[in-house]
Amino acid sequence: MTGAVTYVATLRCPDAPGIVHATTSAIVAVGGNILENDQFTDPVTGLFCMRTRFETDLDQPERVGARLGEDLERFSPVLRVRREDRRRRAVVMVSDHDHCLTDLFYRVEHDEIPLEVAAVVSNHSTLAPLAQHHGVPFVEIPVTPETRAEAEDELRRVVAESDADLLILARYMQILSPELCAEFEGRIVNIHHSFLPGFTGARPYHRAYERGVKLIGATAHFVTADLDEGPIIDQDVARVTHARTPKELVAIGRDLERIVLSRAVKLLAEDRVALVGQRTVVFSQ
Amino acid sequence: MTGAVTYVATLRCPDAPGIVHATTSAIVAVGGNILENDQFTDPVTGLFCMRTRFETDLDQPERVGARLGEDLERFSPVLRVRREDRRRRAVVMVSDHDHCLTDLFYRVEHDEIPLEVAAVVSNHSTLAPLAQHHGVPFVEIPVTPETRAEAEDELRRVVAESDADLLILARYMQILSPELCAEFEGRIVNIHHSFLPGFTGARPYHRAYERGVKLIGATAHFVTADLDEGPIIDQDVARVTHARTPKELVAIGRDLERIVLSRAVKLLAEDRVALVGQRTVVFSQ
Amino acid sequence: MTGAVTYVATLRCPDAPGIVHATTSAIVAVGGNILENDQFTDPVTGLFCMRTRFETDLDQPERVGARLGEDLERFSPVLRVRREDRRRRAVVMVSDHDHCLTDLFYRVEHDEIPLEVAAVVSNHSTLAPLAQHHGVPFVEIPVTPETRAEAEDELRRVVAESDADLLILARYMQILSPELCAEFEGRIVNIHHSFLPGFTGARPYHRAYERGVKLIGATAHFVTADLDEGPIIDQDVARVTHARTPKELVAIGRDLERIVLSRAVKLLAEDRVALVGQRTVVFSQ
Amino acid sequence: MTGAVTYVATLRCPDAPGIVHATTSAIVAVGGNILENDQFTDPVTGLFCMRTRFETDLDQPERVGARLGEDLERFSPVLRVRREDRRRRAVVMVSDHDHCLTDLFYRVEHDEIPLEVAAVVSNHSTLAPLAQHHGVPFVEIPVTPETRAEAEDELRRVVAESDADLLILARYMQILSPELCAEFEGRIVNIHHSFLPGFTGARPYHRAYERGVKLIGATAHFVTADLDEGPIIDQDVARVTHARTPKELVAIGRDLERIVLSRAVKLLAEDRVALVGQRTVVFSQ
Repeated sequence: MTGAVTYVATLRCPDAPGIVHATTSAIVAVGGNILENDQFTDPVTGLFCMRTRFETDLDQPERVGARLGEDLERFSPVLRVRREDRRRRAVVMVSDHDHCLTDLFYRVEHDEIPLEVAAVVSNHSTLAPLAQHHGVPFVEIPVTPETRAEAEDELRRVVAESDADLLILARYMQILSPELCAEFEGRIVNIHHSFLPGFTGARPYHRAYERGVKLIGATAHFVTADLDEGPIIDQDVARVTHARTPKELVAIGRDLERIVLSRAVKLLAEDRVALVGQRTVVFSQ
Repeated sequence: MTGAVTYVATLRCPDAPGIVHATTSAIVAVGGNILENDQFTDPVTGLFCMRTRFETDLDQPERVGARLGEDLERFSPVLRVRREDRRRRAVVMVSDHDHCLTDLFYRVEHDEIPLEVAAVVSNHSTLAPLAQHHGVPFVEIPVTPETRAEAEDELRRVVAESDADLLILARYMQILSPELCAEFEGRIVNIHHSFLPGFTGARPYHRAYERGVKLIGATAHFVTADLDEGPIIDQDVARVTHARTPKELVAIGRDLERIVLSRAVKLLAEDRVALVGQRTVVFSQ
Repeated sequence: MTGAVTYVATLRCPDAPGIVHATTSAIVAVGGNILENDQFTDPVTGLFCMRTRFETDLDQPERVGARLGEDLERFSPVLRVRREDRRRRAVVMVSDHDHCLTDLFYRVEHDEIPLEVAAVVSNHSTLAPLAQHHGVPFVEIPVTPETRAEAEDELRRVVAESDADLLILARYMQILSPELCAEFEGRIVNIHHSFLPGFTGARPYHRAYERGVKLIGATAHFVTADLDEGPIIDQDVARVTHARTPKELVAIGRDLERIVLSRAVKLLAEDRVALVGQRTVVFSQ
Repeated sequence: MTGAVTYVATLRCPDAPGIVHATTSAIVAVGGNILENDQFTDPVTGLFCMRTRFETDLDQPERVGARLGEDLERFSPVLRVRREDRRRRAVVMVSDHDHCLTDLFYRVEHDEIPLEVAAVVSNHSTLAPLAQHHGVPFVEIPVTPETRAEAEDELRRVVAESDADLLILARYMQILSPELCAEFEGRIVNIHHSFLPGFTGARPYHRAYERGVKLIGATAHFVTADLDEGPIIDQDVARVTHARTPKELVAIGRDLERIVLSRAVKLLAEDRVALVGQRTVVFSQ
């Protein structure tokens, strides 16, 4: 198939017979050949989720999207169709820890994660040189409890101007308002430096030390108004011993944080994560 | 859907446009609703593999299979359709190590693995009481290099009489003839007590000790005429230190062996493994 | 060294200069040669812990113990000296889940864990045949909130008559009184079916499912009056996906539970665990 | 203890009774208090290895070393005593892959690894800017089969001038001569991009793909004249599926390589690795 264009379609709707067939029919109708196909029906919410990657000679995203939209209309789906080479765009938010941002830049530049980092936003100026070194706009937005509303308006402006649809909290360490969380539902990912639901809140490594756990962890999750309670996208752990100091746990945790956040961002960038109630469906390869 | 029957269909054929659509059409035609669907096109062999689990009110396996067969005929697939509650039947082969067989019995009896253990075959009598305790026929088939041909005929007879289609070598420790391997291609699974391709052959734990590895492993693979070179189904490893003796490696390895073999058997029992050349496609959940 | 006897000495006391030297001097004085030696000073409690394994021709445990006791007296240690071939004795407590008990029997009988299972105690009769099959006395001690005090007196009697010093809760599912916990401080190990501190309390797998975690875990810990808050000995996790049902999480968890409990029991049986405040020091190999 | 100086002593000699006692006596004699102590007797070579970390007010490394040397002389040990704050110095060798070098710089600068990177040596100029960015001298030493002898003389000069005692091959991709390997025995660490002993030699990820393994790995090992056969210091693996392309395996492998190499370098920088024949003893915390 010369000149083939690859599309990624994602779909979420109440489960019903015939969705898969309607989707494959629509894809055939636009001359498509399915490359990957994943589906899952969540028993808790009754939601059906699907991700289909297909190629076709038809280089007309609107027409492809329209056809899928029409054929699936009766299922009232949340449907997204993306040309695979049109990368999702993200604003990365940081405080003054650099390990997650450094790692994201490395992976994006080495083509491990198909993403555009549109801007870096921080409440500190510390990481401005790092962003600039990678040629990405850096916007400092200081924030205090009193100025949070204005700061978030400024953030909305940056997101809009960046044409971004994803917010990545790469150890941002600030709380977002319930309004912003609702506005960007399923589009804000945070890395929490513990194995949730253990050690929600502050200083998790110190509390892990005091509790004497034998494994420490990190958790990437969608951000909701309930702090550290958002749907989990990925988690991982590392083995530690009694001999590790809190400072060493922090160092071991840095590795976990950047790896888990990067895995979650890659999944999001490839449209592999569906949100079903308080849980996620992850169509990993 | 009352009275619904669940089917698992697996399909393998050269890749071509339209296979998924033809499959979903056939399933719709027999009143089916797709519950799980996985597919993969192997770039090395060009083979397309698919596994579809669907439910329908039609309690007529022949008719369901026939319809899928007709609609997919033009793709010349290897197609299998199984009522999910008709469990695959296996003959388990052992020598005198009991850990893998004990584990398989436990999991089958606790409904972790949907399988019927039709018979246990061994070249020793050691494990006869274990099989009998679990109510499974035990057949002792002694084997020497000279008598291998007869022993394998006897084995063929046991398999046929057991109505089994799967052979599980649960630390059997004997080599099968190339003829038998070919005859049961993709239906004999072995557990090798190393992380293949490292330490093929005998006494892998002792050689792992001498080499000073920091992780030991186990590998479940399809058996082919090339010893320890068959397509890998699953593998796992465990961390070890310099202080572990070969005897302790053997003990740690027992855990790996039974867990990896059981995982592989569960995958096979659920029709989640496709063979593409020297590799396997595993549709894990 | 012919006829050599191996001893394991464990020591815990406030840290001070000279403890190691005093210990090695005493060992030299009884003709000993050190085979293994581990030590750690806990920065939180200031406690020094040590485990030394040594061999000597002196087959007189009392004399060896006395010499160590005298030479170390000024450090006021908790000191224990055990002939290595005098195995620790345990009472295993169960309800009606068999996987942990089955696993412990397997490992003890295959000499993976150097332990004597002196008795099995249960509040159900379900596992009596399993204990009897392995030749171990089974004592049914029914318990209700009202009869807990009497039931625990009965338990104390079984422990005393069994000459046991270790209590293993192998999915016992009943709460012990604060008095019993205090009496057996550092000698009761429990397996909790979650990755503590996440999901304390009941039905952890169902809550893990609802929370949508991507890894489930199990934790072996010393039992204290604070339920699920005792010092952790070992933990492990297994990766799960959105597709796993609660029932499947339970099955995956069974593997974790028996492996983690068995590892913890082996560590205890080899005197490798020291208790320092709310944490453990584990001298693993 | 005010003004205390911490020392790390490592010792290797044929096993004999009394070594531990002689060591602790010498430490007491210089006013020392033992902070950490690890020992192991290798059953294959009969070598006894020990690592002791102690503090004393005596800020005289020569005198401390001399006293240990005298008291232990009769055991003919390989003995090293280092003030802990005198970091080991390393020359890092690279080709044009940057991930391992980037990671080492990050960890050294964030004080995760107590090491001085004295110089970077490469057969390419690609990574000169990276070294310069971190303020480390970069020396390009081109090498061909014909010029290897001269190139290695140049390398020896760089090592000598850098006052380095450790060579880190951070994906250097060139073979060193047997003479150089012998000269720096136990002081050259390499990262091999497979789980040794599987896939020695070139293109391991592509061969892992062809073999269809379900886990890929990386191995840090001492370099000897036998390519990829040197004693292993650390290894790790990552799970992969049939869907991963060779290019994706390479990307996943990059994470493994830098983590495993960094762990091995940290162990070496802290004098935690002893060489016993073809194996290593690793005194990890």
